Amino acid sequence: MPNNTQIVLASRPHGAPVPENFRTETVPVPSLGDGEVLLRTLYLSLDPYMRGRLSDAPSYAAPFKVDAPLGAGTVSEVVESNGSDFAVGDIVLGYTTWSTHAVAPASQLRLIDPDRAPISTALGVLGMPGFTAYAGLAEIGKPKEGETVVVAAATGPVGSLVGQLAQREGARAVGIAGGPDKCAYLTEIGFDAAIDHRSPTFADDLAAATPDGIDVYFENVGGAVWDAVLRRFNDFARIPVCGLVANYNDTDAPAGPDRMPALMGRVLRQRLHIQGFIQSDFASHLGDFHRVVGAMIAEGSVHYREDVVDGLEAAPEAFMGMLEGRNFGKLVVKVGERSA
Amino acid sequence: MPNNTQIVLASRPHGAPVPENFRTETVPVPSLGDGEVLLRTLYLSLDPYMRGRLSDAPSYAAPFKVDAPLGAGTVSEVVESNGSDFAVGDIVLGYTTWSTHAVAPASQLRLIDPDRAPISTALGVLGMPGFTAYAGLAEIGKPKEGETVVVAAATGPVGSLVGQLAQREGARAVGIAGGPDKCAYLTEIGFDAAIDHRSPTFADDLAAATPDGIDVYFENVGGAVWDAVLRRFNDFARIPVCGLVANYNDTDAPAGPDRMPALMGRVLRQRLHIQGFIQSDFASHLGDFHRVVGAMIAEGSVHYREDVVDGLEAAPEAFMGMLEGRNFGKLVVKVGERSA
Repeated sequence: MPNNTQIVLASRPHGAPVPENFRTETVPVPSLGDGEVLLRTLYLSLDPYMRGRLSDAPSYAAPFKVDAPLGAGTVSEVVESNGSDFAVGDIVLGYTTWSTHAVAPASQLRLIDPDRAPISTALGVLGMPGFTAYAGLAEIGKPKEGETVVVAAATGPVGSLVGQLAQREGARAVGIAGGPDKCAYLTEIGFDAAIDHRSPTFADDLAAATPDGIDVYFENVGGAVWDAVLRRFNDFARIPVCGLVANYNDTDAPAGPDRMPALMGRVLRQRLHIQGFIQSDFASHLGDFHRVVGAMIAEGSVHYREDVVDGLEAAPEAFMGMLEGRNFGKLVVKVGERSA
Repeated sequence: MPNNTQIVLASRPHGAPVPENFRTETVPVPSLGDGEVLLRTLYLSLDPYMRGRLSDAPSYAAPFKVDAPLGAGTVSEVVESNGSDFAVGDIVLGYTTWSTHAVAPASQLRLIDPDRAPISTALGVLGMPGFTAYAGLAEIGKPKEGETVVVAAATGPVGSLVGQLAQREGARAVGIAGGPDKCAYLTEIGFDAAIDHRSPTFADDLAAATPDGIDVYFENVGGAVWDAVLRRFNDFARIPVCGLVANYNDTDAPAGPDRMPALMGRVLRQRLHIQGFIQSDFASHLGDFHRVVGAMIAEGSVHYREDVVDGLEAAPEAFMGMLEGRNFGKLVVKVGERSA
């Protein structure tokens, strides 16, 4: 059996994670139980929601345990199979750990067809982030022809698909991103407007890019972007909320004034619809998602971008950078190569 | 022609309205244009949303004009009809003014059948407030069997129907009201629990009355009740927002900390659905509402309570009291008697 290198949660962060919160260990690979599969990790997904699991505050996902390996969505190659339908060499999607190897029950793995799309897309545009975009629009955002849809972190795997799906419905897509390179990319892939949230004129730029107001704001960042966006809402705007990455490292409530009553007043007067969701809540759309976005990938009509970091040991630094918006596209760690 | 006594907006309130914001005038009744009807007001409806129209801040309803008569839903008797289908003596529902008489286009009046229900109910349980309860539950709240539905201002015309309609769906109805008399009334009409928001133990009482958490909170008050309620939400709770009367007189945002980010975090983690609405947004439910609640009234299976104030001149004081929760039931001003 090979050894397994894994990254464990050394301690819980207070505020932004620091390198000391992570620790690399090498341990023996356990032997396989019945119906279990030994996996060699190829790609590891790093996603903003993981920040919540580093803390022990109650949330929709259970906290990671201190001194245990961190969990993640992974694309892996089957190395050994003990009484399962998987064959050695199969490529599978699973939820395993920040590690070079993992043992998982076959029942929790899904076979990936490497001829259909690049296998790493199972963690991005064809995976959880892509489905987040699809489900949030289908269930809550419901963009209509001629409406304006705004999304932040727009070069990320959720945001970029939100904009492109909104345009398929005839809506105008406005993307918010950090820095001129990301904004240039958004224009290149066809967003109707791209706005740099780091610009000192951000709020004015947003107003100029949304002359008819905002009908759908796909909320995945929070923070200062939210403050600017909420002044642009049209009556009956829909706000699917799937992430608040700008707030994740906050330790205390910000200083006043307390804007909650004003927000609720706006909800009332403008009849806003604000709704939190996790993609798994809307699993009934999963078939449609794979059909629609799978076809878009097959016909080359969807743009997606990956930010691939090399080597498991680079994962903590990449994760910390992602929380500051330093990734450019879907952040994945390439942990291993496929066998020839 | 009789003279018309009317109450005009003398000046806009800053914070809570004061008597000086209102002025009584007597003016000649104008002559009737073609298709117009002269009305003698019988009942005048006082509702919390009117507070917004006293200010000139943008909202869903246009501000009342200074020096012009205040508007209100009214039940009136037809005194004269100029080329309309209404006959003298007909009882009609309209949106007219705080006045003893009004001239209105016949097209904007609805005939009321006095044999079906007391005519004042057209302003309450069978009118706009009742429909607010019905539509907010039908479109957003969607209470299910075994769930817990909480409503504040529960002895009011919206709240009392919210609780009773929720119980028809098999949900548990918890009412919040101010003072022991109102709470006793809620228990008497069958609410599963009644909580006094003026009690120093309010938050604990709410927790005790919602042992399984809160699935639907019908928000019509805001303020301290909201603060307590939001800690009790279950995942996937629905919050129809139709009023925030506790906040209406606020002039500035309250001191910090700023709780908006925490609210949005809760929306995300708990997948809350918060949606503002006005009953007129959901007009497609109006037929169902009249059928369902009309039948409940006919069979005597719905409880409603009116707080009838006598005489037009009492309207400003009654209105100011309503904003402090001093009314007990649907607040109407009895302006005139029906002809024999």
